[in-house]
Amino acid sequence: MMNIHPLFWLVPVASVVALTMAWYFFRSMMKTDEGTPRMKEIALYVRKGAMAYLKQQYKVVFIVFIVLAILFSFMAYVLHVQNPWVPFAFLTGGFFSGLAGFFGMKTATYASGRTANAARKSLDGGLKVAFRSGAVMGLVVVGLGLLDIAIWFLLLNAFYTDEKTALITITTTMLTFGMGASTQALFARVGGGIYTKAADVGADIVGKVEADIPEDDPRNPATIADNVGDNVGDVAGMGADLYESYCGSILSTAALGATAFISSSYDMQMRAVIAPMAIAAVGIFLSLIGIFLVRTKEGASMRSLLKSLSLGTNVSAVLIAVAAFVILWSLGMENWIGLSFSVITGLAAGVIIGQATEYYTSHSYKPTKDISAAGQTGAATVIIKGIGTGMISTCIPVLTIGIAIILSYLCANGFELELEAASISHGLYGIGIAAVGMLSTLGITLATDAYGPIADNAGGNAEMSELGEEVRHRTDALDALGNTTAATGKGFAIGSAALTALALLASYIEEVKIAMKEAGQTIVNVSGQVVNAADATIPDFMNHFQVNLMNPRVLVGAFIGAMAAFLFCGLTMEAVGRAAQKMVVEVRRQFREIAGILEGKATPDYGRCVEISTRAAQHEMIVPSVLAIIIPIATGLILGVAGVLGLLLGGLCAGFTLAVFMANSGGAWDNAKKNVEEGNFGGKGSFAHKATIVGDTVGDPFKDTSGPSLNILIKLMSMVSIVMAGLTVAWSLL
Amino acid sequence: MMNIHPLFWLVPVASVVALTMAWYFFRSMMKTDEGTPRMKEIALYVRKGAMAYLKQQYKVVFIVFIVLAILFSFMAYVLHVQNPWVPFAFLTGGFFSGLAGFFGMKTATYASGRTANAARKSLDGGLKVAFRSGAVMGLVVVGLGLLDIAIWFLLLNAFYTDEKTALITITTTMLTFGMGASTQALFARVGGGIYTKAADVGADIVGKVEADIPEDDPRNPATIADNVGDNVGDVAGMGADLYESYCGSILSTAALGATAFISSSYDMQMRAVIAPMAIAAVGIFLSLIGIFLVRTKEGASMRSLLKSLSLGTNVSAVLIAVAAFVILWSLGMENWIGLSFSVITGLAAGVIIGQATEYYTSHSYKPTKDISAAGQTGAATVIIKGIGTGMISTCIPVLTIGIAIILSYLCANGFELELEAASISHGLYGIGIAAVGMLSTLGITLATDAYGPIADNAGGNAEMSELGEEVRHRTDALDALGNTTAATGKGFAIGSAALTALALLASYIEEVKIAMKEAGQTIVNVSGQVVNAADATIPDFMNHFQVNLMNPRVLVGAFIGAMAAFLFCGLTMEAVGRAAQKMVVEVRRQFREIAGILEGKATPDYGRCVEISTRAAQHEMIVPSVLAIIIPIATGLILGVAGVLGLLLGGLCAGFTLAVFMANSGGAWDNAKKNVEEGNFGGKGSFAHKATIVGDTVGDPFKDTSGPSLNILIKLMSMVSIVMAGLTVAWSLL
Repeated sequence: MMNIHPLFWLVPVASVVALTMAWYFFRSMMKTDEGTPRMKEIALYVRKGAMAYLKQQYKVVFIVFIVLAILFSFMAYVLHVQNPWVPFAFLTGGFFSGLAGFFGMKTATYASGRTANAARKSLDGGLKVAFRSGAVMGLVVVGLGLLDIAIWFLLLNAFYTDEKTALITITTTMLTFGMGASTQALFARVGGGIYTKAADVGADIVGKVEADIPEDDPRNPATIADNVGDNVGDVAGMGADLYESYCGSILSTAALGATAFISSSYDMQMRAVIAPMAIAAVGIFLSLIGIFLVRTKEGASMRSLLKSLSLGTNVSAVLIAVAAFVILWSLGMENWIGLSFSVITGLAAGVIIGQATEYYTSHSYKPTKDISAAGQTGAATVIIKGIGTGMISTCIPVLTIGIAIILSYLCANGFELELEAASISHGLYGIGIAAVGMLSTLGITLATDAYGPIADNAGGNAEMSELGEEVRHRTDALDALGNTTAATGKGFAIGSAALTALALLASYIEEVKIAMKEAGQTIVNVSGQVVNAADATIPDFMNHFQVNLMNPRVLVGAFIGAMAAFLFCGLTMEAVGRAAQKMVVEVRRQFREIAGILEGKATPDYGRCVEISTRAAQHEMIVPSVLAIIIPIATGLILGVAGVLGLLLGGLCAGFTLAVFMANSGGAWDNAKKNVEEGNFGGKGSFAHKATIVGDTVGDPFKDTSGPSLNILIKLMSMVSIVMAGLTVAWSLL
Repeated sequence: MMNIHPLFWLVPVASVVALTMAWYFFRSMMKTDEGTPRMKEIALYVRKGAMAYLKQQYKVVFIVFIVLAILFSFMAYVLHVQNPWVPFAFLTGGFFSGLAGFFGMKTATYASGRTANAARKSLDGGLKVAFRSGAVMGLVVVGLGLLDIAIWFLLLNAFYTDEKTALITITTTMLTFGMGASTQALFARVGGGIYTKAADVGADIVGKVEADIPEDDPRNPATIADNVGDNVGDVAGMGADLYESYCGSILSTAALGATAFISSSYDMQMRAVIAPMAIAAVGIFLSLIGIFLVRTKEGASMRSLLKSLSLGTNVSAVLIAVAAFVILWSLGMENWIGLSFSVITGLAAGVIIGQATEYYTSHSYKPTKDISAAGQTGAATVIIKGIGTGMISTCIPVLTIGIAIILSYLCANGFELELEAASISHGLYGIGIAAVGMLSTLGITLATDAYGPIADNAGGNAEMSELGEEVRHRTDALDALGNTTAATGKGFAIGSAALTALALLASYIEEVKIAMKEAGQTIVNVSGQVVNAADATIPDFMNHFQVNLMNPRVLVGAFIGAMAAFLFCGLTMEAVGRAAQKMVVEVRRQFREIAGILEGKATPDYGRCVEISTRAAQHEMIVPSVLAIIIPIATGLILGVAGVLGLLLGGLCAGFTLAVFMANSGGAWDNAKKNVEEGNFGGKGSFAHKATIVGDTVGDPFKDTSGPSLNILIKLMSMVSIVMAGLTVAWSLL
């Protein structure tokens, strides 16, 4: 029936191993003690709030999915401008992504109380519970991702057996399940981001600035909402984001592989399609090795904790670099050495962007220290300095991605940059492979990411349960460790989004060619001859659609793409602003109306604040999310294929840079405040401290709402364009 | 000897008329009374400070010009990769631009004291002095611009008489004098912007926030520096910016015309080259009509003042729309009706962007009112809301420019969007003509712009000279009028920069073709044949350099372009932040050390603050400015022509959007504060007021330093690429 390369079977095996290990980590976390009744109570509040929110989010998402599925079905079965599998692929992508978010968050909300309890005994006990629980998220994401890929690959291989173009059809069809994952991720990031920052900003403004009570103080009515927010935004949101990058990079690379090797044998094509999957599968085993390496002796120092955490990720990265050679060699790939170097390029880019992010956002370095110093002259100079720093910090990540693009292209293309028809698709395949390389050890990198909010929440639990100075000190240490890993993780999420979006951009061209073939359209190639769309090379394609930089469609598309990134950011910023204002009004009301609240004699109405965040997120996520879906569709219908390519390029360049700026400004403000709190420039309660708190508050939506949501935007716009290719080809205005 | 179309002579005539009228307005302003000795003293302080700064700025610029002129001479006479006229054209462009800034600022610093004095008698007396003085700036800019163009056109026509390509050589050579104007403008905008905002932010932070004294209070040591800053930033900087857009749009359109009509007769080519110049020349006469229309009866109300001001600009705009048909018809242009509609498209786009800017930044409308309301929950929500509003406000200008691009292209190209080799250059010519249309009435639009800082300074003079409540009230009214026109003017400056940059982008291609011809290089055309570079069409060119969106060079170039915009903004933001901190420290020192200063018994040391701003500007302008020049050169040398085109596209899209965002956020914060000061949300001194002051302070560098500097950046990067085309063609790494 089919002729699948045996190495493919690594994929389902790795998937099952990942899910089994996730289950094992979850069970062992659940067996640990949850602590005092007060701790259990706090954890329950947070868990209930998080689940209640997730339910509301899934309601909105469900409606959107139904609408889109109907639209896709109409396009597939009535207009016949789309592959009949798309509606189903779309739904499974969304379903698995949602499932990953659900499991991850469930684990996180069970784990944070237990982390606080473990920290009562020892620092490394706390680390272990928090990190292993973070690993559940990491493993569930990669496990479910590969599971979905494996199922569809097997299913479609059973249906399409026409050797010549089967793999192209299969891989481009599978790509559309990325659209489901993208849509789910969009709502998770935007909704979660608005939720968490409405609560956080609201809690900070009234709590820290006006009432002068510390973070996570149980007297603050918004504190539970704030802790719930960490889970829905930083756990579920981040997970869905990376689930999408993970699947998107693997699937788009597979699609590029099927095209690049079309003139080789079917067998070689199959190897090229399986290569990204196999690298990802081996990455899971290596991530597990890394996860098990994260262990410490009793009474380990902070420095050694950080060391053991980076040991885990570094060992996984080095191993996958070595493994890439072995995998590509045993697959018998043409140019396996070059492609292995493409993998290494991606890995190295991820590491460099992570390091640059740390430099610009950690208060061990000059940029963030300077922001703290600016606090001496007030909030305005803190903001000016922070924005300046964030904008300057875009330089290294952009140059790194630029160099990675060129190197991975060159390595995959025999060190030749010329765009001969045949070789260009090999180069693009190399860019895709670099993205896969960057994401191959996602199992452990996401674990260190998800660890952050768990530790943060553990701190919140410890504070609210009044566990005493020493425990709080330990959870603070775990939290600080989490902040470092979170910054690196963010750089990583952005970098992988850029490379993935680029691979998707290339896949879009393939999708258009298939849609043209289905519609019986032909292409005028570079020699002026009319050829079958499926046989057209990339230069032919560019010539046919006049995709050059002097085509007004491309220019206008690029302008709209850049604007879309700003518009989307602006809408999410405003959403947080509005929601936070509501929260402030409510917290002030409670402080005013509930007698004895500030003396700790009366319990605040936590539920009311949770409700405000939930409603605001549910309500505010709709406009930006729907716009992100509509803009590429409208551009396609008005400006055609050339306009869409301009849009994707403009959106990618501006969106990536904007995302780095916002994430880094936000991170730097956060740590500038921490730097002052550590006693510099007057320490807690000083003029500089108040000024840096304003910076931190502004930075919250920068780094946790708008910035990360842009990752999704740049991928989603490509995904929507891919799914809509049939419609664009069938009709466009200009 | 030469065969210049008679309508060309309109250009020198208009230029002389403009300069004569500027002289007339200057003389009549100088004849008015300067007021009390105290008023004269204050005006002298400001004038001296402004001139001292300008001297410093010209020193830095002089060195940069010498270095660049040597570099260009080396390229022209040793490497032979550049036209021998370029070093001279470069120097005259810089010289005339500097001269325009000098005259404009000289006038402004003489006028503001006299405006205050006239306002002692009547509101409309003040308006007349201020507006006519602003008109000096407007007329000097357009007069000198056309003078430089006329001289070079006559000179080069005497040298190049080879009928076939003469006009292409002439126009592309002239284009490089835009590089001189760009470089001068860059330093004027960046240096002036840093100067003015260091003083303004410093004065506000200590004066308004800490010491609680009003704006322009003579007790504030930074107040003179603040007033000097208005002149160097908003008069000289804005003038140099628009001088460059004005010349750049005319010259690039002339160059595009020479190419578009190469296959028609030499005569038609000449008409196409002269058309933009003739439109600009007629625009001068119509601007003068508009300027004379700005007059009011004694005792006119505020509303009628605003009406008479917009009457002037609107009448000029309507007249030029009509005149375009007449000019293009009497020139005997092919498709003169279509091209006239391209002019109208540009004019309409300017008006729409201006209106949108007003909507998003005036406190008569919801967005700015909402920012004021956010003041009730503190500075952080003001900042979040303002950034959100600014980002959202990019939508209309970007869509407007997009529609203008497509419409002006379609109108000029017989309503055909297809990119046939012959018609594409007609379409691009239409885009250039639209830019010329938008800028044709610069004489009056710049007058209303330059009026703003003069009125602002008049207010400062009145406050410091303690002229009493009523006079201050009148100057406040004049200032408020100026704020409205300034917002529209900024939108206009950005919009014209975008269209001009696009025309320059198209001209770059022509410049590369000429450089290739000089170097004896050939081009592989779309049919795969080797042809002479000069005979290549735009599709041939794109094919040869593989300028398509899947070329890694283009992709990486676009990434770098987007990043360059952010980096440049970040550097200028940081520069203002650093300089402002120094100013704050100095003002605090004076308040502390000079006894009786806050009681008005001792005179502050104004000179020290002027010196700080001057030094900071001089020092801080270097890095961002030099980077703006180096980035396109480096990109060309590493990534070649395809990389440069990517760079320019990425820089244009991201830079334009970023510029609109920053200008509008800044403007909205300014007016949100004014809204509170008018008694809303608690009025002056309230919690909301303090919060909106932080917003206003952050907005200062947004709207007056980084945002406007981006206008120059996007044009300068194109200009540098054009001048460096020979080098890029001779050698590039990848």
